[in-house]
Amino acid sequence: MRTYRLALIGFGNVGQGLAQIIRDQGDDIARQLGVQITIVAVSDLLKGSLYDPDGLSPTALLDAVQTSGDLNGVAAPHRDWNAQQTIAESSADVLVELSYTDLESGEPAVSHISQAIEKGLHIVTTNKGPIALRYPRLSALARDRGVEIGIEGTVMSGTPTMALGQDLLAAANITRIQGIVNGTTNYILSQMENGTTYNAALAEAQEKGYAEADPSGDVEGFDAAGKVVIMANVLMDASITLGDVARQGITGLTPQDIETARSEGRRWKLIASIEKTASGVKAGVRPTRLPTEHPLASVSGPTNAVTFTTDLLGDVTLIGPGAGRMATGYAIVCDLLGIARKVQPREK
Amino acid sequence: MRTYRLALIGFGNVGQGLAQIIRDQGDDIARQLGVQITIVAVSDLLKGSLYDPDGLSPTALLDAVQTSGDLNGVAAPHRDWNAQQTIAESSADVLVELSYTDLESGEPAVSHISQAIEKGLHIVTTNKGPIALRYPRLSALARDRGVEIGIEGTVMSGTPTMALGQDLLAAANITRIQGIVNGTTNYILSQMENGTTYNAALAEAQEKGYAEADPSGDVEGFDAAGKVVIMANVLMDASITLGDVARQGITGLTPQDIETARSEGRRWKLIASIEKTASGVKAGVRPTRLPTEHPLASVSGPTNAVTFTTDLLGDVTLIGPGAGRMATGYAIVCDLLGIARKVQPREK
Repeated sequence: MRTYRLALIGFGNVGQGLAQIIRDQGDDIARQLGVQITIVAVSDLLKGSLYDPDGLSPTALLDAVQTSGDLNGVAAPHRDWNAQQTIAESSADVLVELSYTDLESGEPAVSHISQAIEKGLHIVTTNKGPIALRYPRLSALARDRGVEIGIEGTVMSGTPTMALGQDLLAAANITRIQGIVNGTTNYILSQMENGTTYNAALAEAQEKGYAEADPSGDVEGFDAAGKVVIMANVLMDASITLGDVARQGITGLTPQDIETARSEGRRWKLIASIEKTASGVKAGVRPTRLPTEHPLASVSGPTNAVTFTTDLLGDVTLIGPGAGRMATGYAIVCDLLGIARKVQPREK
Repeated sequence: MRTYRLALIGFGNVGQGLAQIIRDQGDDIARQLGVQITIVAVSDLLKGSLYDPDGLSPTALLDAVQTSGDLNGVAAPHRDWNAQQTIAESSADVLVELSYTDLESGEPAVSHISQAIEKGLHIVTTNKGPIALRYPRLSALARDRGVEIGIEGTVMSGTPTMALGQDLLAAANITRIQGIVNGTTNYILSQMENGTTYNAALAEAQEKGYAEADPSGDVEGFDAAGKVVIMANVLMDASITLGDVARQGITGLTPQDIETARSEGRRWKLIASIEKTASGVKAGVRPTRLPTEHPLASVSGPTNAVTFTTDLLGDVTLIGPGAGRMATGYAIVCDLLGIARKVQPREK
């Protein structure tokens, strides 16, 4: 049995989804897959911080947040530690970095991750900021310290896109990646095809929790551009930055554009693309009119999809959820199982 | 560096595809992924048998088959060993079982695999026979001996369906699998939608090498049923046999059926399905009229696809090639890399 003791920095939707999976399926995962997952510390700027070397009960954490919105009612031998102290002084062996996403500085996540790697912790994160901005440096640091970095949840939530590209297509030689990697914009475009205006579709996306109050990160393509950088650098061995991504959002699309495309048997999608060329990797995010028979054209609503074009297999497409509390919580479990496979010697 | 020394039983299309990948990309795979793949033995009933403990040149093997159709012109210190002797006396550490598929007895592959496991060899096979018929026993035997069995190529060729289901969706709890897992029938149905008759479409499929001279394994659904058994037993922990699969082929479909479905906005597909129910696993292969917006409806020609319905992620769909010399050769590489990940301890 492999045991992972997690310190969660941030306890929003994703952290709570993870706690729910551990509460409901932790025993099954331990019994069937040989990996025991325990939360020993939670540090959240707003909800409070707890550390118990014997493990925190996921049920108690979830009940407290549901009743009071914070963690104050949960008993624990240590509390009020900030993120830094939690990483430094807890007995966790995995840092689960779930603080807020900042695509300009990557902070505070970059500092948390660097500190944890130095201390010898494995890292699992769903936070695009540090991975889009600092992956080459962080992964070199991790290699030096002999720890793993799991980043499944940074692209397509728990749909195992990164593991598919990194492990399973490793030798097939990926020459191009095309995808729909932002659920909010795909939902808006799908609704506009059904006759809804842009503003009404955006309001619906916000109501359903797909889009933030300030939607510019989604609709201007910044979120998708961050994912493009991550896929290029992790899966295609590039070293590009956000500035290298030719980015265009969906705010310029009119109902007329949508209708014209439809009359031509086409559909607008916000397509993220990365291509190996003779002069290096070309990366972009832009609205694209796909013919309806294109495998990405039928991906609608908040669903995401990525097509890997490879030398040995041709096109391989993965379609799945791009967001969601449980789906993103699963990304963390998927990474922990991946780390267990990578670092645990088997019988032979 | 991890080194695998392969003994290939069978040197048809798949074995030659593998040899081509090793010839063209073996150095890259070794350098980038740390896995060195060497063919030390080939034993083919018709083309001849060779063993060289220092390794056989994939170029020499391929050139010989291309010029003379057999391996007689390749120099090797040992030759004319049958499969049994090759497994017993060669220094291979991986048996690559590529003999012909027999969905009734599973032989001779079952005997080859059993013998090799007993000797402590890892197994990689693309042969559905032994896996559809004897997986529970063979995998128990492998566990006892501390060796791995790679079976990626038994479903959707090198598209990493089995690894996705087994490793990456392991904790998401797969409750249903639906898929298009036979390329020949999907090609025929796509051609019939374009107005071709069944007989003409079948002849085209044979001409393109998708269908065998005796097409009944494909068109009667036996091939798909074998894959259903494999997915049920490996990915859903069932222990069903071919007799448990409710099987219906496509030979009863008329142009009129296809046309009627089209006029209703639907498409006929030969759908393989496995579902967990209160009374156990229900498995079937049958022609199904899918609405055109269904993710499997747009999968056409020889392409295959599988949708995993899971508790934590909802639906996850993988689309990719279902056959092909290089794609199936890649399945073997994918399995070898998977074995390397599973059995090789990393730094920590």
